[in-house]
Amino acid sequence: MLKNRVSIVAVGTELTTGFVRDTNMYYLTRALDDLGLEVCSATMLPDDHALMRSVITEAMQRSQVVLVTGGLGPTEDDFTKEVLLDLFGGEYREDEKTLERIKELLARRNLPLTEINRRQAFVPSSAEVLPNAFGMAPATLFHYDGGILVSMPGVPSEMRGIFETELRPRLAAWTGQIKHKQLYVFGVAESILSARLRSWSTALPQGMALAYLPSMGNVCLRISYNLALVSQDVTSEHLHTLYTLLEGEKILETNLSFPAYIVQTLTRIGKTLAVAESCTGGLVSGKITSVSGASKVFCGGICTYTDTLKERELRIPKTLLEKYTAVSTPVAEAMARAVREKFGSTYGVATTGYMEMEGGANVTGEVYIGIADAQTVSAHHFILNQNRIGNQEWSVERAITQFLLTLLD
Amino acid sequence: MLKNRVSIVAVGTELTTGFVRDTNMYYLTRALDDLGLEVCSATMLPDDHALMRSVITEAMQRSQVVLVTGGLGPTEDDFTKEVLLDLFGGEYREDEKTLERIKELLARRNLPLTEINRRQAFVPSSAEVLPNAFGMAPATLFHYDGGILVSMPGVPSEMRGIFETELRPRLAAWTGQIKHKQLYVFGVAESILSARLRSWSTALPQGMALAYLPSMGNVCLRISYNLALVSQDVTSEHLHTLYTLLEGEKILETNLSFPAYIVQTLTRIGKTLAVAESCTGGLVSGKITSVSGASKVFCGGICTYTDTLKERELRIPKTLLEKYTAVSTPVAEAMARAVREKFGSTYGVATTGYMEMEGGANVTGEVYIGIADAQTVSAHHFILNQNRIGNQEWSVERAITQFLLTLLD
Repeated sequence: MLKNRVSIVAVGTELTTGFVRDTNMYYLTRALDDLGLEVCSATMLPDDHALMRSVITEAMQRSQVVLVTGGLGPTEDDFTKEVLLDLFGGEYREDEKTLERIKELLARRNLPLTEINRRQAFVPSSAEVLPNAFGMAPATLFHYDGGILVSMPGVPSEMRGIFETELRPRLAAWTGQIKHKQLYVFGVAESILSARLRSWSTALPQGMALAYLPSMGNVCLRISYNLALVSQDVTSEHLHTLYTLLEGEKILETNLSFPAYIVQTLTRIGKTLAVAESCTGGLVSGKITSVSGASKVFCGGICTYTDTLKERELRIPKTLLEKYTAVSTPVAEAMARAVREKFGSTYGVATTGYMEMEGGANVTGEVYIGIADAQTVSAHHFILNQNRIGNQEWSVERAITQFLLTLLD
Repeated sequence: MLKNRVSIVAVGTELTTGFVRDTNMYYLTRALDDLGLEVCSATMLPDDHALMRSVITEAMQRSQVVLVTGGLGPTEDDFTKEVLLDLFGGEYREDEKTLERIKELLARRNLPLTEINRRQAFVPSSAEVLPNAFGMAPATLFHYDGGILVSMPGVPSEMRGIFETELRPRLAAWTGQIKHKQLYVFGVAESILSARLRSWSTALPQGMALAYLPSMGNVCLRISYNLALVSQDVTSEHLHTLYTLLEGEKILETNLSFPAYIVQTLTRIGKTLAVAESCTGGLVSGKITSVSGASKVFCGGICTYTDTLKERELRIPKTLLEKYTAVSTPVAEAMARAVREKFGSTYGVATTGYMEMEGGANVTGEVYIGIADAQTVSAHHFILNQNRIGNQEWSVERAITQFLLTLLD
């Protein structure tokens, strides 16, 4: 068992069959990373007693904190409590406060208290109860050999609520010494970057580490340092050398996501954005508006899927569409210009492309990103070679990244 | 080791820190479920040699197929090959075909062949090489005690390409006997449904199983049956009883996702859709346009974030906005009506709400969904009580589900 190491176990056949896409593991990995805790495994399991027992046991062997989500529902395919009773011993007891809360929730919805509901108030006597302010099943906390295991409901809102109110404060008390710095390098291949930084990274002292996190058109260098093992001065010195090695490259240092960085930057400089989407169908707007505070800088978006709509809503000249087709540099630029005028924003971003073999497509995944402000306009062409979903996701990433690069200039 | 059981191991610190959201495990769980294979664990791991070794060993013990993604990059924090060499023995050999392909890919980008690139052509001699048509690092296949382990690159497009061309055909040859049926029940709580179906589900024969997959406003009953263990006749008889037990409820039988079902239905009945979004910022359009063939039924979308835009782009009367505010039944209905006129579609769907405590919000997460066709219009109000991201995701789900219900009527 290693100190500050966490394992996550997400229980539910809906996850292992892909019926539902995981959100809890994703949420927890980010939250734990923020706290400076290392996730050493995150496992999805079906609702299967024997599998849960062995995977949870393995997780306890390798980590100091085990977070289990799911398997606490009222139906007969939910086993988490049984498994934990098995592992930690004790017997079921009825938790009074939980029962009160269940009665109250049911009363609010005018539902009777059934035997099945009542069972949700039963908890293993070996556990401490953590209240669930957002639902019926409470979380439970167990101790083992220097570590803790916490079982939480799988409903994302309930899990998040319990994590934020009950767990984050406890876990924060353990750590606070591990820091991260994210340095994005644009337009350099990972293999070239890694060759250039190899002697630097292999000479890093104990307590300092580099990870390469490559994405579309950039590589994020993620430098972690543990201030209990390496001083701030030594850290700064190594970082300084890294900056020297990256001189001349386009870089961005931020721990924010790109959409959050865009919203923050636009807010700071007092500028605004509007988006016209063809092939990305609203997903670029969606990324921007997912950021808290986006309403102050995002003027609006329009999804003009057809040529007719491009003409009518964005006043793209028919002649332009006929001469170059909708998937072209002139149309991407015209859309970017038109949308900033339509919505009265500083910047306009536009996407147009073929996401699969259709219409005039020659390759699978061709996209033009148009970007305009009052003075300038540009278009950027990418061939993505994915399937439909992949092409759309990558087009969104490309549009966001390209606009970010514009803001950096 | 159990027959037809698969474990997935996704390697990468970018996953366990939440820097990148997993897509490979999600893709593979769906694909394997389609094939009738049971995923008994899906684990994300950091780039850590010892952890990879122990988790991969555990996976081989519990399943007949182990799919490993990631850790094949050219940088020094990629260890998968080393770990597999350790586990399966042998030595590195240079794979000629792979080297040729790498040279070709580099030549196309006008890049020289570096030592780091060349290393990607080295494979353990104990492995069979599966070519990677979309990138540099090939996949490798190892045999163990009646099972196979396949190591694939973590880049989603490369992983998907290799899975579809090399693995799906091999795996399909093993199965084909397990079938699934999905039955959505709307507006009944999981606990009530499970009480009603308990005697039915506990009497199911060997080879037939029921899982409850609850989501927003519906519970999906997923019935799996293995035709090697239970006959088609017996299966049909039990399904018939299930339908009788559900009489009077609003149900939908489909193995499609809701957006795919909507696109399929609109195509079949020759109707079209347009979307006006305020609080969901383009994400409803995004869900619909992610479906292949959406362009035939989706006329367009607009994201009107501000009152001014609602007035100008959708001609929502100022008086209406002043009297009821933008987050109200009359405005949701007016938006739905306006957007179907604007884009000339059969149906209009609109969203307006507060995703966090802001402006006139009294609760966190309040949304109105408006739905209009030529004759009728309706609005549906929900209080979601999530954080911003959660409220937005749930609003999107609610809009999609509500429109689906309209189509079912």
